Amino acid sequence: MTVTAPAGFEAAGVACGLKSSGAADLALIVNRGPRRAAAAVFTSNRAKANPIIWSQQVIADGEVAAIVLNSGGANCFTGAQGFQTTHATAEAVAEALAVGAGEVLVCSTGLIGEQLDRARLLAGVAAASGSLDAESGMDAARAIMTTDSVPKTAERRRDGWAIGGIAKGAGMLAPGLATMLVVITTDADLPAPALDAALRRAARVSFDRLDSDGCMSTNDQVTLMASGASGIAPDAEAFEAELTALCLDLAAQLQSDAEGASHDIRIEVVGAAREDDAVEVGRSIARNNLFKAAVFGNDPNWGRVLAAIGTTSAEFDPYDVDVSMNGVRVCTAGGPDRPRDEVDLSGRAVHLLVDLRVGDATATILTNDLTHDYVHENSAYSS
Amino acid sequence: MTVTAPAGFEAAGVACGLKSSGAADLALIVNRGPRRAAAAVFTSNRAKANPIIWSQQVIADGEVAAIVLNSGGANCFTGAQGFQTTHATAEAVAEALAVGAGEVLVCSTGLIGEQLDRARLLAGVAAASGSLDAESGMDAARAIMTTDSVPKTAERRRDGWAIGGIAKGAGMLAPGLATMLVVITTDADLPAPALDAALRRAARVSFDRLDSDGCMSTNDQVTLMASGASGIAPDAEAFEAELTALCLDLAAQLQSDAEGASHDIRIEVVGAAREDDAVEVGRSIARNNLFKAAVFGNDPNWGRVLAAIGTTSAEFDPYDVDVSMNGVRVCTAGGPDRPRDEVDLSGRAVHLLVDLRVGDATATILTNDLTHDYVHENSAYSS
Repeated sequence: MTVTAPAGFEAAGVACGLKSSGAADLALIVNRGPRRAAAAVFTSNRAKANPIIWSQQVIADGEVAAIVLNSGGANCFTGAQGFQTTHATAEAVAEALAVGAGEVLVCSTGLIGEQLDRARLLAGVAAASGSLDAESGMDAARAIMTTDSVPKTAERRRDGWAIGGIAKGAGMLAPGLATMLVVITTDADLPAPALDAALRRAARVSFDRLDSDGCMSTNDQVTLMASGASGIAPDAEAFEAELTALCLDLAAQLQSDAEGASHDIRIEVVGAAREDDAVEVGRSIARNNLFKAAVFGNDPNWGRVLAAIGTTSAEFDPYDVDVSMNGVRVCTAGGPDRPRDEVDLSGRAVHLLVDLRVGDATATILTNDLTHDYVHENSAYSS
Repeated sequence: MTVTAPAGFEAAGVACGLKSSGAADLALIVNRGPRRAAAAVFTSNRAKANPIIWSQQVIADGEVAAIVLNSGGANCFTGAQGFQTTHATAEAVAEALAVGAGEVLVCSTGLIGEQLDRARLLAGVAAASGSLDAESGMDAARAIMTTDSVPKTAERRRDGWAIGGIAKGAGMLAPGLATMLVVITTDADLPAPALDAALRRAARVSFDRLDSDGCMSTNDQVTLMASGASGIAPDAEAFEAELTALCLDLAAQLQSDAEGASHDIRIEVVGAAREDDAVEVGRSIARNNLFKAAVFGNDPNWGRVLAAIGTTSAEFDPYDVDVSMNGVRVCTAGGPDRPRDEVDLSGRAVHLLVDLRVGDATATILTNDLTHDYVHENSAYSS
């Protein structure tokens, strides 16, 4: 049921010919109310796609009636014609639903720098509008897939209200890879400012800490819409807890389906002077191609971990850092400890534990290894 | 002749068993004077290898009698024992040459986190000291190779004085990849401060702008030694011009032998408000795995170029940027121009031209594509 699990939402997923494969490529998710509160977070890339520019205006008043998402083209760097396509898409949805275009969010994902086929897109909007129902959340999840091998969905229920979500992509929000699009719905009755605060906090410790390949997308968007249809207004703490758990669930699904990856690497940084230091250290390791290639080769090359830490501005002493891989302490105080051949990296899950030994702040960053398949998939992407 | 091309220098390259292949793994280069002025630049990684820590002390007074370099081990994160190995190496060279240990630079390259075999290293120093001559610069160039497929050497002569150099590695200085080691000799008669100023300026526009994979090494060192044996003191401008040309030559050799690369990419950024902006933009593109994988696949994916620029703090308008690849203008003012299939990326050389259209500052960054072979070589490095 995914985004249609919470009461008050309808969805559809259709194929309108944007993908040459003929697979579903347009999703529409509608909030039937009674409330239409919403919040969203966007890529921090300064090069923003047309749907991002549009959606940032729409979300400003915290009221959203519907969100339309297409795969098969990012509509980024497509000039005035491209922006008009985004605008026309929102207008078509608005007309079909008898709402204002300023209440319709738009997301796009796919290749940058190519015009979307506007006629096909508008035909897709018409088809989706005609097939909306409260059961089709999974169809929407499938329609936003690009290189995803499986749809990503999640649901949580608590005390009479629910949250549901769909996601596509293999990366993070700010910065982000390969366009991560997420739509989360809830029938909790919460105003837009409360949704915004909860979404920002949840994204900060979930999608923001997923860094598959360090490449920031032009199209990333995470949207939260609340119908209020449960008639229940949960307290802020309970809502944020469920929302965060759902975001972490979706983030883990994105990680495990990252393009070409053969290992899911959880980088846990402890003993940092402050949380920002822990995040900076974790992200630096997550972006080190040499470390990531070593993990692909099942090689516990902890020297590359220390070399990556050395490029940060975090508080630490290179000769007082401990490193463990999958439970084996390979480095103590910046020197060799257990023999590296005691580390078993043959499984998909890798846990890298770095202790900076200067404080008690922590952060966990999720990443993947750098593989032949990553190179292959991304070299062949636009062909 | 390489580093022994300038008068006043002797060199040797020997095999002492640090490399399991039995290939040459220790180089010694000696300045016979009459002057012993020197300068060096080092990795900016805060995690510095033992030989870097040692050499930074040695170079402080601008006097260097010899430099000893080993492959087969980086001697980084090897604790007190590792530093003692570096110290003992310098002492052994000093004793053989009847100079002070404080006049001997040490460089190491290879795997991080493993102890060097000190007995083999010292035996290598003895062997090298006994085979020094003014013809063996090429032997030294071969002895510092790790994953290099060919030795990198250069020589320049002008007005009665000469410069010679050797290099290993496939990356850049600050930050740097896979340990770049460079030794440059000259028989010009220049004091250490003049050498230092010329070396910093030359490195800034050559090695510092080679960014093969964005990974900063713990062991990078570029050393310049002047014997004064020509008896000629060239003017600063002439010396810097020749030194810069030699550094650019070596940097191009490093780029074209980068691990696993199939394309040499020259990223030329023009129209920047300031040189720092142009460097930041070029480096951001050079580190974008998605762009680099696309080039591997001969795919002129200029959208990934703009996405990379969008992550920088440089002054630009995403919708007023022009991009050309191998002479074809694929993007004008942030929108599509010529069809991407007009771009031919089948050759090894790729020229990416980015015009930010806000000023007249420029910079060129050299990088490589991201290939299956890069992943393979770096996943198998320590095995």
